[in-house]
Amino acid sequence: MKFASPVELKWIASLINAEIIGDNNAFATGINEIHKVETGDLVFVDHPKYYTPCLNSAASFIIINSKDVIVPAGKTLLYNSDPFEAYLKIVEHFRPFQTATKSISDSAIIGQDTIIMPNVFIGNHVIIGNNSVIHPNVTIMDNTIIGDNVVIQSGTVIGSDAFYYNGKNGREIRYKRMKSCGNVIIEDNVEIGANCTIDRGVTHSTIIGKGTIIDNLVHLGHEVVIGRNCLLAAQVGIAGATTLEDGVILWGQVGVSKTLTIGANAVVLAQSGIPGNIEGNKVYWGTPVREASEKRKELVWVKRIPELWKKMMES
Amino acid sequence: MKFASPVELKWIASLINAEIIGDNNAFATGINEIHKVETGDLVFVDHPKYYTPCLNSAASFIIINSKDVIVPAGKTLLYNSDPFEAYLKIVEHFRPFQTATKSISDSAIIGQDTIIMPNVFIGNHVIIGNNSVIHPNVTIMDNTIIGDNVVIQSGTVIGSDAFYYNGKNGREIRYKRMKSCGNVIIEDNVEIGANCTIDRGVTHSTIIGKGTIIDNLVHLGHEVVIGRNCLLAAQVGIAGATTLEDGVILWGQVGVSKTLTIGANAVVLAQSGIPGNIEGNKVYWGTPVREASEKRKELVWVKRIPELWKKMMES
Amino acid sequence: MKFASPVELKWIASLINAEIIGDNNAFATGINEIHKVETGDLVFVDHPKYYTPCLNSAASFIIINSKDVIVPAGKTLLYNSDPFEAYLKIVEHFRPFQTATKSISDSAIIGQDTIIMPNVFIGNHVIIGNNSVIHPNVTIMDNTIIGDNVVIQSGTVIGSDAFYYNGKNGREIRYKRMKSCGNVIIEDNVEIGANCTIDRGVTHSTIIGKGTIIDNLVHLGHEVVIGRNCLLAAQVGIAGATTLEDGVILWGQVGVSKTLTIGANAVVLAQSGIPGNIEGNKVYWGTPVREASEKRKELVWVKRIPELWKKMMES
Repeated sequence: MKFASPVELKWIASLINAEIIGDNNAFATGINEIHKVETGDLVFVDHPKYYTPCLNSAASFIIINSKDVIVPAGKTLLYNSDPFEAYLKIVEHFRPFQTATKSISDSAIIGQDTIIMPNVFIGNHVIIGNNSVIHPNVTIMDNTIIGDNVVIQSGTVIGSDAFYYNGKNGREIRYKRMKSCGNVIIEDNVEIGANCTIDRGVTHSTIIGKGTIIDNLVHLGHEVVIGRNCLLAAQVGIAGATTLEDGVILWGQVGVSKTLTIGANAVVLAQSGIPGNIEGNKVYWGTPVREASEKRKELVWVKRIPELWKKMMES
Repeated sequence: MKFASPVELKWIASLINAEIIGDNNAFATGINEIHKVETGDLVFVDHPKYYTPCLNSAASFIIINSKDVIVPAGKTLLYNSDPFEAYLKIVEHFRPFQTATKSISDSAIIGQDTIIMPNVFIGNHVIIGNNSVIHPNVTIMDNTIIGDNVVIQSGTVIGSDAFYYNGKNGREIRYKRMKSCGNVIIEDNVEIGANCTIDRGVTHSTIIGKGTIIDNLVHLGHEVVIGRNCLLAAQVGIAGATTLEDGVILWGQVGVSKTLTIGANAVVLAQSGIPGNIEGNKVYWGTPVREASEKRKELVWVKRIPELWKKMMES
Repeated sequence: MKFASPVELKWIASLINAEIIGDNNAFATGINEIHKVETGDLVFVDHPKYYTPCLNSAASFIIINSKDVIVPAGKTLLYNSDPFEAYLKIVEHFRPFQTATKSISDSAIIGQDTIIMPNVFIGNHVIIGNNSVIHPNVTIMDNTIIGDNVVIQSGTVIGSDAFYYNGKNGREIRYKRMKSCGNVIIEDNVEIGANCTIDRGVTHSTIIGKGTIIDNLVHLGHEVVIGRNCLLAAQVGIAGATTLEDGVILWGQVGVSKTLTIGANAVVLAQSGIPGNIEGNKVYWGTPVREASEKRKELVWVKRIPELWKKMMES
C-alpha cells in the first residue's frame, strides 16, 4: 500500500507509539511486505529470524521489536514492542474498512459501454474500464481496478480478504488476521468464470494479466500474479504470492502452493499438485508434479511390480 | 431438532397416523437422528438392520414399521408403515419452509456494531452477535446462530440443505430428500472465506468452533463439527457428520469422508483424501492419507523400481 | 441453436458477407456444432483437419474458408474467409446479449407454487415449472428451462457462458470466446446444491436428467448431459460435452475430462480423475481412474516394494 502522499515519520511514530532511531525528519511513502517493499516504504518485523532480511530489504523504515540489530546506512528504525499491532494500526488508519450502504459505491468509476447486471456489489474507489460485462451477483470489493473488454461471470468475488494470519500457539484465539490493504488488478481482455474467488493483496496487488481466461470455481490467493494469455480451467486453486508467467495452462482441479513460480508456457495436466517452482515450456502431471512423460513411465513401472515379484520368486 | 416446548405423544401419533405401543400419556421433547438423539426425543427407523440400535439409543420414542421387536423398558413405539414419511410430516409441521419476501427477516436478531453489507440474505430466527462483518452477497438461512467477532466473506452460503437422501432402486424418482430441520452454529472469532458452503444439520447442528479460520470455496456437510482454532485452506471439502478436534490444519483441496474423526492438532497436507479416522498430533499426506513421512519414503521406493528391475535382470 | 423460424440462406449470406455455392433458395433452421447439428442447420469450419467431418455431418449448410473441397450431394457451402467471425455475427444477431435492468425479467415464466427467494436473478425467456424452490442469491441466465419440483440452493449459477475459446499463438489476445447461444435444461425433480456452476451449451443444451441430485460447489461445463437419478457429491467437476448415463454416482472432488461417456450405474470413488470413457455397472477409483479392486491391489503391491528390494538384496 502506498499512502496518498508521503507521511511524516514522526506522525507515524506517534500513531503507533514507537521510538525513532535514525532520521527524525523523514517521510514514508507507504507500507509493504518484505518482498514487495520499495525505497521510502515502511516494513515491519517481529521475529528475530527475519530481522536481517527486513533490515536489508528495500525498505527505508523498519518497525521492529529490538534495538539490538545492525542497521544498514540510510535506514531508520521505529522501535515498538509489538510491530504486528503497529502494522494493524497503520492499515486501519489509512485503509479503514468502510461499511457500504449502497450496492454500487458513489466513488466507483465505470467506463463507457460497460454493463453492470443486477444484484452486483461494487465497493469504494473501484475502477472499471470500457466495454466490460459484470454479470449478476458478482461482488467487487474496494480499490479493485478492472480494464477494458473484461467479462466476469455471475457469483464471482473479487477482492475478498487474504487468508493470512499471525498464529500463536497457546493463545485463546490462536490466529489473528493480518489486515489486507492491497487490492486486485485485472488487465484488459481478461475473462473470469462463475463463482470464482480472487483475494486482494495483503499490502500489494493480486494481478491477472491481459488476455488471461479463467474458468469457474477457481481460487486465487493474495498477491498471486498471473501473466498474459494464461488459461486456468475449473476448480484450480493457487495459494498466496505465487507467480504464473505468460501463457501458462493449468487444467481442472490443479492445486498450486504459495510463493512459487511457474515458467512461461508450462502446461499442467488436471488434478496435479505443484509444491515448488517449475520451468516453462514443459508438460507436467501428478502430485507432486513431474514432467508428464516421466510420470507416465512411472505408472507403467508400478503396474509391472507383480511381474517383478513373480520373476523374483522364480529366480 | 427440539420442539419449542414438549409435545403430547398422542398429538404426534395422530399427526403421523401411528399406533402408540407403550406410554399413552408421554410428552416428546424433539426428534433427532440416532447418533444425536437424547432422552425424551423421537427417533425413526424403517430398516430392520437399524431396529436394535435405534431401540437401544437414548431416544424415548421410536417411530418404527414393525411390532415384532424387543422393546427396552421405558421406551414407547409409534407404529407406522412408513416411518420416513412420518418423519417428513413432523419436520414439515414444526419447521415448515417459509418463503421469504424480504432480504433480511424481521425475526433476525443482529448484535451491536455488526456490519451487514449490501445484497445479503438473512432468514428467519437468525441470531448474529456483536462486532461481526457479513460481506456482500452472503446467504444466511433460517435458524443460523453466529457469535461475536465473526467475519464472513462475500458469496458464502450458511445453512443450505443437507445432501442427505433416502435412495431406493427401481423407484422412478430414486432419491427423496430427508428434509433438514437442523441449523448451523458459528462460534465467536470464526472467519469464513468467500463462496464457501456450510450445510445445516439434518436434525442437529453443524458447528464451527471458536477461533477457527476457513479459506475460500470450502464445503462443510451437514452436522460437521469443527473444533477450536482449526485452519481449513481453500477448496477443502468435508462430508457429513465428520468431526475435527481442536487445532486441526487441512491444507488446500483436502477431501474428508463422512462420519469420521480427525484428532487434535493433526496436520493434513494439500490434496490428501481422508477415508477414515486419523489420530491427532501427526502430519499426514496422500490419498488414501498416511503419515507424511511414510508417504515420502514410498515415493522414493516407487522411483527405484526401474533400478530394482535392472538389478533383477542382471542377477 | 434453432432460429425462431427458418431463415433465408441468402439473408444469412448477406449478414456474414459469404458466397453461396449450391442452393440459392434454401432456408436454414439453426446453427450448431458438428456433433449436435441436424439437417437444415448451419455448421462452421475453419481448419482443413475438420473440413471432411463437417461436410459429412448432418448439416445442410457449411460456412467454410475453402472452395477446394468435395461437397456431398444436397449440401450448400457459404464461402467466407473467416468462418469463426461469421459464426459470431450470426450468434450476435439471433441471440444478442441483453443488458438486464431488473432482477427478474418480464419475459420469464414461473409456474404455480414455485418459490423465488430474495436476491435471485432470472434472465430473459427463462421458464420454471411448478412447485420448485429457487433459494437466495441464485443466478439463472437467459433461456434456461427448469422443470417441476426442482430445488436450487443458494448462490448457484445456471447458464454462465462456456469456457470455450478459439486460441491462436502469436496473437496479442490469444484466446477469443466462442459466444454461447445454447442454454441449460433442468428436468423435473432435480436438486442442485449451493454455489454450483452450470454452464450453458455453446450452441446446444447442457442437460440435467430427471431425479438427479447434485451437492455443493459442483461444476458442469457446456453441453454436459447428465442422465436420470445420478448423484454428484460436492466439488465434482465435469468438463464440456461429457455424458453421464442414468444412475451414475460420482463421489466428492471427482474430476471428469471433456467429451467422454460414463456408463449407466458406474460408481466413481472420491478424488478420482477420469480421462476417457468408462463402462457402466462398475466401481472405479484413482487418477487415472481404474476399477477400484485393481487400484486397491496396486496399493498393496506398492507397499511391498521395500520387501521385494530386501529379498533381492538377500538373493
